[in-house]
Formats: sequence, structure tokens, C-alpha cells
Amino acid sequence: MMRVYLDNAATTAMDDRVIEAMIPYMKEHYGNPSSVHSHGREVRSAIERSRKKVAELLNASPSEIFFTSGGTEADNTALVCGIETHGIQHAITSPLEHHAVLHTLEACAKKGKIKLSLVDINEKGEVNLDHLEDLLKNNSKSMVSLMQANNEIGNINDLNLIANISREYDAFFHSDTVQTMGHYVHDLKNLPIDALVAGGHKFHGPKGSGFLYVRKDKKIHPFIYGGAQERNMRGGTENVIGIIGISKALELAYEDMAGHRAHIEGLKKRMIELLQANIPGVVFNGLSGDLDRSLYTVLNVSLPPSEENRGMLLFNLDLSGISASGGSACSSGASVGSHVLRAIHHNPERDSVRFSFSRFNTIAEIEYTVEKLKEFYAVEA
Amino acid sequence: MMRVYLDNAATTAMDDRVIEAMIPYMKEHYGNPSSVHSHGREVRSAIERSRKKVAELLNASPSEIFFTSGGTEADNTALVCGIETHGIQHAITSPLEHHAVLHTLEACAKKGKIKLSLVDINEKGEVNLDHLEDLLKNNSKSMVSLMQANNEIGNINDLNLIANISREYDAFFHSDTVQTMGHYVHDLKNLPIDALVAGGHKFHGPKGSGFLYVRKDKKIHPFIYGGAQERNMRGGTENVIGIIGISKALELAYEDMAGHRAHIEGLKKRMIELLQANIPGVVFNGLSGDLDRSLYTVLNVSLPPSEENRGMLLFNLDLSGISASGGSACSSGASVGSHVLRAIHHNPERDSVRFSFSRFNTIAEIEYTVEKLKEFYAVEA
Ligand SMILES: Cc1ncc(COP(=O)(O)O)c(C=O)c1O
Ligand SMILES: Cc1ncc(COP(=O)(O)O)c(C=O)c1O
Repeated sequence: MMRVYLDNAATTAMDDRVIEAMIPYMKEHYGNPSSVHSHGREVRSAIERSRKKVAELLNASPSEIFFTSGGTEADNTALVCGIETHGIQHAITSPLEHHAVLHTLEACAKKGKIKLSLVDINEKGEVNLDHLEDLLKNNSKSMVSLMQANNEIGNINDLNLIANISREYDAFFHSDTVQTMGHYVHDLKNLPIDALVAGGHKFHGPKGSGFLYVRKDKKIHPFIYGGAQERNMRGGTENVIGIIGISKALELAYEDMAGHRAHIEGLKKRMIELLQANIPGVVFNGLSGDLDRSLYTVLNVSLPPSEENRGMLLFNLDLSGISASGGSACSSGASVGSHVLRAIHHNPERDSVRFSFSRFNTIAEIEYTVEKLKEFYAVEA
Repeated sequence: MMRVYLDNAATTAMDDRVIEAMIPYMKEHYGNPSSVHSHGREVRSAIERSRKKVAELLNASPSEIFFTSGGTEADNTALVCGIETHGIQHAITSPLEHHAVLHTLEACAKKGKIKLSLVDINEKGEVNLDHLEDLLKNNSKSMVSLMQANNEIGNINDLNLIANISREYDAFFHSDTVQTMGHYVHDLKNLPIDALVAGGHKFHGPKGSGFLYVRKDKKIHPFIYGGAQERNMRGGTENVIGIIGISKALELAYEDMAGHRAHIEGLKKRMIELLQANIPGVVFNGLSGDLDRSLYTVLNVSLPPSEENRGMLLFNLDLSGISASGGSACSSGASVGSHVLRAIHHNPERDSVRFSFSRFNTIAEIEYTVEKLKEFYAVEA
């Protein structure tokens, strides 16, 4: 049996070159980067080289990059501390955001720090920008938090457009870029955004690594208080191997982004074609069937109603050696169902599965997967 | 030249067996523990085995252990969320606490969430427990946060005593146990404490790993919001290798704690003897010269006033290949000086240096170090 990993939006396998870069910092270079002696200094300089590398790749300044324990902590930091530091009284987000954003803003609202508004979306998951503008018009001291790309249905929002609208109303604009970082170019000198985030494990770096970008003139106070690490912005001894790992992973991602994209887009295209040819009634959730308006890494497939497969699809795929996801693996283990599919009024008669790809996948894996789906859905034909 | 690492209270070298345990989770087992497929399940079960192991070693229940990105995040979580969840209005701590506690509580006070009191200490850094009791008597809805052992001067507080006083006044009791975890036994069924913390890198585990213990009947809400990880207590894809690493490191620590202690205590004792025999006027800060009342891993040495060495001691040690610290390396890079030494009114004419030991140090290293100190301080003799 083939073992096929098509859950790369949940997490990716680490690149061997990332592991190689990390290992010396597990074995030889163990000093505390805050220590002034030689054991510490060699580690400090590795961290600062990593920060510089990340900043260069994103066209930002090193003083705007803060390493965190992952995308979720970075989102929490931007939101909670953005609100507190800049006197935000009203936040706008969408029902399709990751729980790292939704639950954080809900908690802020519950604590009475902000009023929370949800921008309208349609059944394709597209954000209604007129409504966004209305909300901004009617509320001062706002924050806008809208993701660049959705982790379940792959929809891409136009960051430039949203950034410009936000700026017009003097709103703090944060975007959850966990699914696009390392897969798309971010040019932060030319994008008027205030904060964005990354999780290293989404682009072949280590789990538990991440970073937050905060624009120079929108500085925020720390989320985690402690020592003077990260220029006083995040207390706690640095996850040195995580920092080495995420910066190496980002470097590798940028080294051949076009090549990776061509390969992965080829897989997605092939899967769409094969599914349409072999499974009558298949449709794609959100914009994920639209190659121009969705992540090239994500295809969210809605299968025709089938007694045989009802609720068993992921399980049957798993038995065939195929790992895929029923929603956001990172937030639920799928047991409570997907809030994203619910928000776009997904037909509960149909089973949906998110396939997500990386540069380590092959056409043979795609063909095998569709072959299996064809078998499952042929049963009743 | 010998290269001697005597800054183990800042961070320790990883044990090779810890690295070995982590590597399969960098290479083969890359699934997201929240995914329900086989790639995810194998990682999920490794995490839960780690949690169970930590719980067993501490005589706690697995549902009371939450993995974090380090000691600092664990402290922040216990303090901020303990205050919010339990309606705490007043917190008591000491001026000798780590910044992970002090700065966090100061920020809570500044935001108007609590009134903050500092318990009196004397010039040896001993906490005045009568004053603690007075503060508790005069303020309801209190939290007490007092560390088990100080990272700079090594002073050990009697947790049992403080826990019982706190309980008497119905106060939430948190202790920063970062310096004792893995070096002393914690028996949480028999210690009436509400929350304690660990940082893996202090006992030969990875940097960026930690955990928080919260007693079952004192549950708190999350600090980092997001997915349902850590039983809904901490959003964010788990730092899998960090969790594997810290649990393995704790297991190794408990496997031969008495043996490690005997070896390290031997080093400390020898250093005290050699210093007293060779450097007239040497004294030990806090209780660190008292083997029964201080960490066996820490010796904080106050050297006689010397024009030659004034402000140059750490630098001169470093030039001789010896890594030691002028205070808490984790919190300052020593550039602003130690708030702990200031609080115990350390004589500013004297240079102080913290030597901290691990089971990887040798008697030869101690002898070399004292030899060097003797040379430095002989200059003027
Ligand atoms: C007493 C004490 N508390 C907290 C910390 C912070 O732990 P971490 O470095 O894992 O964030 C340290 C270490 O620097 C410490 O010594
Ligand atoms: C869109 C989005 N935001 C945030 C996160 C959380 O990132 P991390 O897992 O690094 O905490 C994820 C991943 O699960 C995600 O897909």
C-alpha cells in the first residue's frame, strides 16, 4: 500500500537541510543567547543572522521581526497587544478565520476590551469589502484582521486592497499569513500592512516555530513578559533550534518559489481534472477550484452524497494509506466539524475533504488518491 | 586553553539521549498531532506518552500538565490567567523573583487588574514570612507567587511552608520552579501548591520547551487562544520535538537524581573550599554558601574590591575560556546589572560572579577556574 501525505496545510515534513541546520545547535552550540560569554555570543549571532535573513526575504527591517512559538502565538500577540497598545475599541474579522484569530478576538470581546464585528461573506467565502468599509465608516479606532488565505478552502484575499481600505480609515491591519508564508512573495516595504505572522511548520520548518512582523511605526507591547529577549518584545529563552529552522526553511522556500509553485500547481490541476473526469457530481468548496484565486497548495473537494461513505470518507482514505483532512486539522481533530464549511453553508449531505500539497508530493500520489476515491464512489453507481 | 562552561543556571547542554529521542520526530514522524489520520495519530500518542511520563514523575495527573514554549510562558500563563479566572485582586511576590514573574505582575498592576505587594526580604535574600502573612491577612482574593529557588543567589524557599500559609488565607499559590525542576523531587500530591512551571533547557532538555502544572481544582482559562490543543488550554500546533525533549530530559533527571546531586554538590563544595583557601576576603552572596539552604547547582561569589578587575571579571574569565554569569543571563545580558543583587544591597565596590554547575562539569574545571581567579586577584596582592 502506498502511504500518501496530502495534509500539508496541517503541517509539512521538515526539509533535510533544515534539520541539518538545526542539529549543531542541539549538539555543540548550546549557550544561552543572552549570556555575554563566548558560549552565548555564538548563539546570539546565529539568532541575529536568522532575523536578518527573514527580514531580507520579506523586504522588512530586522527590528520588525520577532520570533515566537508559532503562528498562533504570533496572532495572539498582534491582536491582544495591538488592541491594548493602540487603544483599539472595535475589531473586524470574518467567520472564516482560523481559531487563532477568532477565539482570540472573541476572548477580547468577552473581557470587554473591544466590540467585535464579523464582515459578511458569501457562499464562496468571498469577503464583502463594501461591508468592511461600512463597518470602518461607522466605528472609529478599529482593527481589521483578515487572513491572506484560508487554510480550509484556500480562498485568497487581496491584501493590498484590504490594507489600503484599512489605512484610509486609520485602522490597524493584521493578517494571518500562516498559509501563504513561504509559498508566496511578501514585500513588506510595498504592502501597507501593520502586522503579519508565520508558522514554520507550514513550509518544511519545525513545529513550535513562528514569527511576527510588526511595522516600525505601529510598535506594540509584549504579550509574554520576562527577560529582555527579542528586543524586549518577548520574554523567554529563545527556541534557538526553532529560530534556526524557520529561517532556513524560509530561505529554501524563497530560493525556488517559482519552481515549487509550478510543481505543486501541476499536482492540483491534475487532481481537479482527474476528479472531474472520474467522479460525477464532484464540486470544489470555496474558491479552491479556481487556480487564480485560491492557494495552489489546497483543494477542498465536496463529494456527491453517498450512503456508503457518509462520515467515513477520511477513515476510508486513511485505511488506503492516504492522509487528508476534513477541515482544519490544526484546530479540531475534525471532531466538532469545520466552522468554515458551516459558514459557507456547505451541504451537510455531502462529505468534504481537504487535500493539501507540498513540493514533496508526486503525480503518482495524486493518481493513486483519485483511483481510491473512484473506487469508494463507484460502489453505489 | 580549557573551555569551561559554568553557566548552567542560564542554560545547560542537551543530553545526547534527549537529542536521540527528538530526531525521529524531526525526520520520520512529522504529522500534526491534531490530525486524525495515521500520520497524526502516531505523533499524538507520543505527546500523550510524554505528558503521562511528566505527570508520573511529579506525582500529578496528566490532565494537570500543559506543555508551553518555556518557563516564561508558563509563568505568564499561571499569573495572568490565574488572576483573571479566579478573580484575584491582589498579588504578593518578592523583589528577588525572575523577570518572568516580576514584569508580568507589574504589567497586570499597571493595567489595573491587581494591587501588587512585595514581601520584605533581608540582606541574605530570605523572605519574611510574617510579612507575607500580614499581607495575606490584610488583603482578600490574593495570589502568592514565590519562587522555589533563586536563579542568581540560589536561595531555597520552603514551598511547603509557603503553600500552607497561602492555603490558610485561601490564596492562589504559584511558584516559579524553573531552577529546581529536574534537580529536586516534586511530589505534587503531597505539596498543596496550585501552579508550578518548568523550562526544559535548565535540565539538559531543549530551549523553547516548558510546562505548566495547574492543580485540577484550580483550573484556569487559556493564555494563548487558538485550536483545541493541550485540552483547550493552549492553542497552537505543538512543539513536538520540544515536548519529546523535555519529557525525556525529566525522565533522565529523575533516573539518577541522587547521583547527579552528589556529583554536583561535590563540585560546589570543592569550589567553596578552594576559593576560601585562595582568595582572602571572598564571600558568597545570598545563601549560596550554605549547602543546605541553596541550590547545589549555584554559587554566587562576591570577590574583594579590586581596581584591576573592576567591571572586567566576566570578561577576564571569558578570555580564559570560562563561561559564567554576572547575574541572570536569561534576563539581561548583564548590561543593566542584577536586580537581585541590588535588592540584597550588594556592595557595588565588589564584583560578583555566578558559577552554576551541571553533571557534565568536572573537578578539574573547578580547579582551573579557581586557579584563574587566584591569578586575577593576586595582581594587586
Ligand atoms: C527562576 C527562573 N524563572 C524563569 C526563567 C525563564 O525560563 P525560560 O528561559 O524557559 O523562559 C528562568 C530562566 O531564565 C529562571 O531562572
Ligand atoms: C490560517 C492559520 N492560522 C494560524 C494557524 C496556527 O499556526 P500554528 O500552528 O503555527 O500555531 C494555522 C495552522 O494551523 C493556520 O492554518
